[in-house]
Amino acid sequence: MAKLSRRNMLKMSMVGALALGGINANAALNEKDVKFDEEYDVIVIGSGFAGSMATLQALKRGKKVLMVEKMGRAGGNSVINAGNMAVPNNEFQKAAGITDNKDAFIADCLKDGLNLNHVDLLSVIYDRSNEAFTYLKSLGVEFSGKVISSSGHSLKRAVQAKNASGSGYIGPMHKAIEANTNAVIKKRTKFDDFVLDDSGRVVGVKCRENYKFDGNLQSDDKENTSGEPKCFKAKDGVILAAGGYSSDKWFRVQQVPVLKTNIDTVSQPGATAGALLATLKIGANPLHLSWIQLNPYTNPTEKGFGTSALFSNHCANDYGLTVNPKTGKRFMNEHAGRKVKSDAIFKCMAESANNDNYPVNICDQAAVDLNNPLYTSKGVEAGSIKKFDTLEELAKAYNIPLEPFLKTVADFNGYVKAEKDPEFGKPLSKKDVNSIDVSKAPFYACETTPKILYCMGGVQINTKAQVINAQTWEPIPGLYAAGEITGGVHGASRLGTMSMADCMVFGMIAGENI
Amino acid sequence: MAKLSRRNMLKMSMVGALALGGINANAALNEKDVKFDEEYDVIVIGSGFAGSMATLQALKRGKKVLMVEKMGRAGGNSVINAGNMAVPNNEFQKAAGITDNKDAFIADCLKDGLNLNHVDLLSVIYDRSNEAFTYLKSLGVEFSGKVISSSGHSLKRAVQAKNASGSGYIGPMHKAIEANTNAVIKKRTKFDDFVLDDSGRVVGVKCRENYKFDGNLQSDDKENTSGEPKCFKAKDGVILAAGGYSSDKWFRVQQVPVLKTNIDTVSQPGATAGALLATLKIGANPLHLSWIQLNPYTNPTEKGFGTSALFSNHCANDYGLTVNPKTGKRFMNEHAGRKVKSDAIFKCMAESANNDNYPVNICDQAAVDLNNPLYTSKGVEAGSIKKFDTLEELAKAYNIPLEPFLKTVADFNGYVKAEKDPEFGKPLSKKDVNSIDVSKAPFYACETTPKILYCMGGVQINTKAQVINAQTWEPIPGLYAAGEITGGVHGASRLGTMSMADCMVFGMIAGENI
Repeated sequence: MAKLSRRNMLKMSMVGALALGGINANAALNEKDVKFDEEYDVIVIGSGFAGSMATLQALKRGKKVLMVEKMGRAGGNSVINAGNMAVPNNEFQKAAGITDNKDAFIADCLKDGLNLNHVDLLSVIYDRSNEAFTYLKSLGVEFSGKVISSSGHSLKRAVQAKNASGSGYIGPMHKAIEANTNAVIKKRTKFDDFVLDDSGRVVGVKCRENYKFDGNLQSDDKENTSGEPKCFKAKDGVILAAGGYSSDKWFRVQQVPVLKTNIDTVSQPGATAGALLATLKIGANPLHLSWIQLNPYTNPTEKGFGTSALFSNHCANDYGLTVNPKTGKRFMNEHAGRKVKSDAIFKCMAESANNDNYPVNICDQAAVDLNNPLYTSKGVEAGSIKKFDTLEELAKAYNIPLEPFLKTVADFNGYVKAEKDPEFGKPLSKKDVNSIDVSKAPFYACETTPKILYCMGGVQINTKAQVINAQTWEPIPGLYAAGEITGGVHGASRLGTMSMADCMVFGMIAGENI
Repeated sequence: MAKLSRRNMLKMSMVGALALGGINANAALNEKDVKFDEEYDVIVIGSGFAGSMATLQALKRGKKVLMVEKMGRAGGNSVINAGNMAVPNNEFQKAAGITDNKDAFIADCLKDGLNLNHVDLLSVIYDRSNEAFTYLKSLGVEFSGKVISSSGHSLKRAVQAKNASGSGYIGPMHKAIEANTNAVIKKRTKFDDFVLDDSGRVVGVKCRENYKFDGNLQSDDKENTSGEPKCFKAKDGVILAAGGYSSDKWFRVQQVPVLKTNIDTVSQPGATAGALLATLKIGANPLHLSWIQLNPYTNPTEKGFGTSALFSNHCANDYGLTVNPKTGKRFMNEHAGRKVKSDAIFKCMAESANNDNYPVNICDQAAVDLNNPLYTSKGVEAGSIKKFDTLEELAKAYNIPLEPFLKTVADFNGYVKAEKDPEFGKPLSKKDVNSIDVSKAPFYACETTPKILYCMGGVQINTKAQVINAQTWEPIPGLYAAGEITGGVHGASRLGTMSMADCMVFGMIAGENI
């Protein structure tokens, strides 16, 4: 009863559209209609890479920061990310004798991005990711010390977490945030709407505390009325870092109707469109919302990201080959960007009536040894990656016709030796990608199918991470954004390792500028 | 002075964000803050095909309708449209012995639309376009009596205006509207924002009368403060039919950055994003905004749509061939959809350093005779289409290497005879597309380059033409939309003749349902 009374009091302190829970379908709130429960300098929505970096930078400047996270655990999709970050000109790249350059970096991104990318934002990432990397090291993030390649990049330019996971970053970042007395982290606290002043400036947010996310609902954003409404004032403004909508079944299928056809996602269930939609209502410019990326490295026998995706990506696709089990032949450039490969894999799958002619990613022991051993050991343990003493056994296990398969591998090994793939144009120059042949037993193999990974689309930002109003072309005063909730950086298709670079750099910039 | 006083009084009757002119950047207006100047049952924003059809249907039901149009002339892009409308199962199609079917219709649209299309909306267009066509005939719209083919369609299914222009429809439609005493048309009246009640229902609009559109401004929507603010009540609701944003230089380049590179548009200058953006602020779901279509039929020597596009589309592409002037060879399926062809033409153009290796569209007298004579005579007169007695003269005029060119034409004529194009898969079955060879002098030719034509993206509607709120998944009460301002129907790329079908059918449905 006491709790109910408190709720009723809260309700009475807020008027109009600000109901107990659920959606304020019409407009943002006006500060005149709101009684703020707490006051901060900066409010950050989301606790992944972008939100954490923004928080840390704002704290560095002495700001009092509230970070809100609707889920029960911090880190969003970032904490289940692979932990590889594009950092042009990083120390490991230099040590490997590789010279990066901005034109090549931008050209790589534009190629898979189909020229939809906002080049001014890519330019900032090129210029400042090394600074973000240096700062992360100072927090104690541990790196493998290697520079690694990633599909679509013409050069090796990514650093990788020692533990092969985004948790290797989120851990030290959140430790630093928690150690700062100016920081407040509220988990299970859902952002519902912005509070504006009469001039249109973002001056706070309406949230619900003690929110219980319910993944069993058709739409948590729409149906979940749990939690107690609170309004928080943000004196300097709000940083939006709430991520993408790849787990939002309704919204993603409106944008891309074919995504309803039993396609799994690798994202955490909280990756929904609610925060994005609240931002569109205050005039933010929506960019590229119908570009939703599939991960071509995931396994059809497992749910979600599974245990083999890093093997498929970095061992098999980088150093091995992929064959169509029906023909025993290759059918794509294994180093192409994600969209090209996903399209090719879907076409291969469709060669069987049940849409299950899954391609097989293959490499040898040398490829495994060139990568983090965890990339392979987890999948071998779980059974998603299989290990064979001979190519003959491998072919038998996946019903691949032996003779054409052996010819395919022999041809491929010839291409590696010649450093040129005349069939599909996979880059094999030893200088750039350190290519190796498939000859050192044991051999490893894994089936592959695309799953929903990442939303390229989101709100438009400028190079200062300010959210742009589509009608005025000016920043929405008091509102910044970074990471997957923004659009424009990646155009039609994001390259691997570019999400971390985007989140870290624009999170940093948002925290610096707010 | 008298005028200024009146303006000041108007200003005083509206509070807050409702300034004299310009943008209300934050939120829609609340009816409590507004004094309505006039009252109608239905307000229609836009006066093109969709708006006119919606108005006529609402008038038929006895509604008092206000149609607002920001420009000085009615008809928007519709009145400069080619006047061809896809009407599956129309009388001319039946008379030609062609049997249409819904699966083929939807498959045609999905192919060029890259499966992004909302199939439920396509299904409605298939079911009801014949009804719209019959109604248009009853208004006195004159048709050529032919069923015509259009690129991307597997069957001939389009009707065409006798005068080869959208004005052949807009004329009789507006005559009928003007004759109805329940109709008020206000030209030079710009829609700025919606007026909502406390429940979020659209109950009116804020406009500016005596608006002077200024095409010389960087952005008319943003900078033009002309006109006198008025608020109009819409008792039953508002129908949004304000068209696309292909003349909106800022908005389109945010969505598709490459469109800044000197690419012309065929749209009228008033085709801007203002009305769309006002609708996003009240929660409408934005679909496919970054899909902007180019018209592959336009001429590089002229501004805008010019005098040769209908020739290139319906004479040369339907019945002839297109060659690369550098090689004398064909390089695309001339009957492919607009995106496929625009991409191929840009690639051809890029074979010269100045990006001006323009492909040449070619056909013969028989192709010209199969079409409306105006398609060709206007361009011949203007000089954009050239006429030659021999293929040799044609080759010389465009610097096409003669021998390969003559071989290309001979090969093509052989394909027509065999009813199969083994090179590029152009449909040549006499049954479906009535193919002819290129042999009957004189010959006609015309250079081609893509120009910005159409915006596939817009707000989401359901099959009742109700605008969908992205947060509630429900219709926004009191708000309907039809035509180019909606998204979803055409997916990634609209087929020719489908714009008219979309506008007419969903305009009709909006007027029926409001």
